[in-house]
Amino acid sequence: MAKRNPYFHNYEENYLFPEIARKKQELLQEQPDAKLISLGIGDTTEPIPKVILDGIRKKVDELGTVEGYTGYGSEQGEAELRELIASKLYQGRVEADEIFISDGSKPDIGRMQVLFGSQASIALQDPTYPVYKATAVGLGQKVVAMPCTQENGFFPDLDATERTDVLYFCSPNNPTGAIPSRDQLQQLVDFATANRSIIVFDSAYAGFIRDDALPKTIFEIEGARSVALETGSFSKLVGFTGVRLGWTVVPRELLFEDGSVYEDWKRVNNTFFNGACNIAQAGGIAALSDEGLAAGRTLTDFYLENARILKDALTKLGHDPLGGDHVPYLWTPFAGASSWEMFDRMLRERHLVTTPGAGFGPCGEGYLRFSAFGHRADIEEAASRLLESGVVA
Amino acid sequence: MAKRNPYFHNYEENYLFPEIARKKQELLQEQPDAKLISLGIGDTTEPIPKVILDGIRKKVDELGTVEGYTGYGSEQGEAELRELIASKLYQGRVEADEIFISDGSKPDIGRMQVLFGSQASIALQDPTYPVYKATAVGLGQKVVAMPCTQENGFFPDLDATERTDVLYFCSPNNPTGAIPSRDQLQQLVDFATANRSIIVFDSAYAGFIRDDALPKTIFEIEGARSVALETGSFSKLVGFTGVRLGWTVVPRELLFEDGSVYEDWKRVNNTFFNGACNIAQAGGIAALSDEGLAAGRTLTDFYLENARILKDALTKLGHDPLGGDHVPYLWTPFAGASSWEMFDRMLRERHLVTTPGAGFGPCGEGYLRFSAFGHRADIEEAASRLLESGVVA
Repeated sequence: MAKRNPYFHNYEENYLFPEIARKKQELLQEQPDAKLISLGIGDTTEPIPKVILDGIRKKVDELGTVEGYTGYGSEQGEAELRELIASKLYQGRVEADEIFISDGSKPDIGRMQVLFGSQASIALQDPTYPVYKATAVGLGQKVVAMPCTQENGFFPDLDATERTDVLYFCSPNNPTGAIPSRDQLQQLVDFATANRSIIVFDSAYAGFIRDDALPKTIFEIEGARSVALETGSFSKLVGFTGVRLGWTVVPRELLFEDGSVYEDWKRVNNTFFNGACNIAQAGGIAALSDEGLAAGRTLTDFYLENARILKDALTKLGHDPLGGDHVPYLWTPFAGASSWEMFDRMLRERHLVTTPGAGFGPCGEGYLRFSAFGHRADIEEAASRLLESGVVA
Repeated sequence: MAKRNPYFHNYEENYLFPEIARKKQELLQEQPDAKLISLGIGDTTEPIPKVILDGIRKKVDELGTVEGYTGYGSEQGEAELRELIASKLYQGRVEADEIFISDGSKPDIGRMQVLFGSQASIALQDPTYPVYKATAVGLGQKVVAMPCTQENGFFPDLDATERTDVLYFCSPNNPTGAIPSRDQLQQLVDFATANRSIIVFDSAYAGFIRDDALPKTIFEIEGARSVALETGSFSKLVGFTGVRLGWTVVPRELLFEDGSVYEDWKRVNNTFFNGACNIAQAGGIAALSDEGLAAGRTLTDFYLENARILKDALTKLGHDPLGGDHVPYLWTPFAGASSWEMFDRMLRERHLVTTPGAGFGPCGEGYLRFSAFGHRADIEEAASRLLESGVVA
C-alpha cells in the first residue's frame, strides 16, 4: 500500500496561525459581541492603488480581444516586468535574465527546498518566519538554528554557527524587525563565502526601509553575487497578498560544487511552476511605473504610521518594542510571561489578536509580535485599548 | 561546498518544448519570411469570454475600495468557487471541502510529487504529458512505463503493469486523444484497489468531451473515492493558460497505509503554496455561472471544430489520426518515418509546427501530435498546406 512521504511524520501539530484561529473562534463563541482587532497575521488591509488597478484593467481588456489575447507567458515572467524590477528595485545590480517572476515568496521558498533537495542542511534565524522550516521538514532537510536575541542585537553569532549548505536570512526581519547594517551583511556574505554556503535572502519587507544607509538587498554587499539568491514580493508593497506576485533573483555566478544554481533554478521554475498570473504581472508592471512607485510609497507609509501609533502606545506603557521604523512589525518583550500567556491576555482582556513570539521559534519566547497592518481607526482603537489597560505583564 | 540536489543529475537535456523552440528559431533565421503556423504546444488562442472578464472586472473594482478589498484568501481557495466546481463540474460527487484551488495542474503536479516523496514509485502512460516524469525525476522517484499503443487501444495492459505506489492517468489523453470507457476506468480503479495504489487522474481536457457515455471524471467510477485524486484546470476550458487557475480533488476516504492523503495534501497546500490569484478565482466563479458555462462550451466547440478541419485534411491524405472528437489534439501515425523527421518535414516543407510523438515517450515514436488550438484562418491555412503537399511520409 502506498505510504506517506516519511518526512511528513516529522511535522508537528498546531502550526502557528491555525492555532491562533482556533483560539479566536473559541473566544468568539464565548463572547460573540467581542470586537476583535487583528494585529496578528501580516495581511494588508488597504485598497490597491488606482494606477495599479488601471494597469490590471488594461490587461483584462486585452485578454478579451483577438489582438490582445495571450496564452501561456514565459515561465520566467514577462520581460518588461523583469526589466523594471532590475532597474527600479535593484538599480541594475542584477540583470532581468536573473529574475524569475513567481506567485509569491512562500511558494518560491517551497520550490527552493526542491532545488536544494533532501540532503541539504540549512540554517535558520530563531525566531523566524515559519515557512522556511515547514518546507524543510517536508523535504527532510537538516535544520540548524541561529539564535537572534536582544543579547546579540538580533544578528546571529556567526562564530558559533555550524556550517550548513544553505542559510536563510530575512531582512527587514519578520518577526523581530531587525535590519542588519551593511557591515553585518558583509560578515554574513563573508561567512557564506568561507563556508561555501548559499544565502537565501528574503527581502519581502525591503519596501518599508526609509533610511538609505540600511541595505535593501543583499546585492548591495560585495561578493554577494557569488553566494546569494534573493526572494522579493509585491504582497506588502502594493497590497498584493491575495493577488500573488513575487520574484526570485538568482545571479549567474551562483554555483553549487557540481553545477550552476541558476540553471537548476531555471529547471525547477520550468518544471514545478508555470508562470505567475498574467493579470497580476500587469499589475506589477504598473506598480513599478513612477506613479505606481509613488503610490506604493504612500501605502507603505500608511502602515509605517500605524506602526508608529502602536509603538508610541507600547512605549508609553513602559515597553521597549523593536522594529516599527522600517518594518510593519513591532517585536515586544514582556518579561515574566510566556508569549502564549501574553497572547491569551491580549486576546481575552483587550480583544487584540497578536502573534506569540514562541510561534516563530524558541528564541521568540517572551515576545509578542504586533502587526501594523490594519485600518487606521482599528489601529487607533487598539492603541487606546493598550493605553487604557495600563502596563501589561 | 553546497552540492546540487543529487537527483538533478538525472535530468536529460533537450526537454521537448525548448528543443522545438530552438528548431523554430533555426528555421526563422534561415527563412525570415516563413509564415509559421503553430499546431505545437497546446496553448489557447481565442479571447476570454466577456462574461468571465466581467467577473474579473468586478473583483478588480472591489480591490480598489476599502469595503471590497481582501488580502490573503483561504489557501484552499474561495468557498464559492469550490462549491461551484463541486456542483457544476462534479454534480455533487465530491464535496467543496475536498477541492483545493490551484494556480494550475502543472504546479499542482509538482506539489503532488512532494506529497508522495522520493521513496514513491510511480507508473506513467507512455506516451504522456512530460511534466509527470520531469517532476518525478527531481524527487528521485522510481518511474515505471505503461505502454499505450495502437495494439492495446491506447489503454495500458494492466496485467503486465508492475505495481507502483502511484499511477498517473490522463483522460482525455494528452497526447493520444484516447478516452477510456467506463469499463476501462473501472478496470483501472480495480487494479489500483487490488494493488493499494493511488491514481492521480488528470482531467484537464474533460471540458471537451461531447458524449455523455464517456466518463468526464474518475469519480463517476465505483470505488474511485478510495483510490484516486483528480486534477483539473480552467486553462483550456476558458482560455486561462496565462491566467493560471486549476484545482485538485482529494476525497477524504483516500488513505496512505499510515495516514490520510487528504490531511497531507492540506499540509502541502498550506505550506508549499499560498492560494491562487484572487482575480483569477473571480474569473473561475464567473466561468461556472450558467452564462459562463455556455461561453466555455462555445469556446471549446470552436477548438473542436478546428480539430475537425485538421482531421478532415489528414484523413483525405490517407492518414488515420486519433483524437480530435472530444479532445483538441490529433495523434497521427506516420509509418516509416521517425517523429522528429516528420516534425522537421512539417516545419521545413509546410511551415507547420507540430509536436513529435517521441517527445512524449518511446511509444510516441512514429506519431505527430497536431494541436487544434489556433485562430480559424490559421487552422484553415494549415489544412490547405497539408492538402496541397499531398500524402506525407
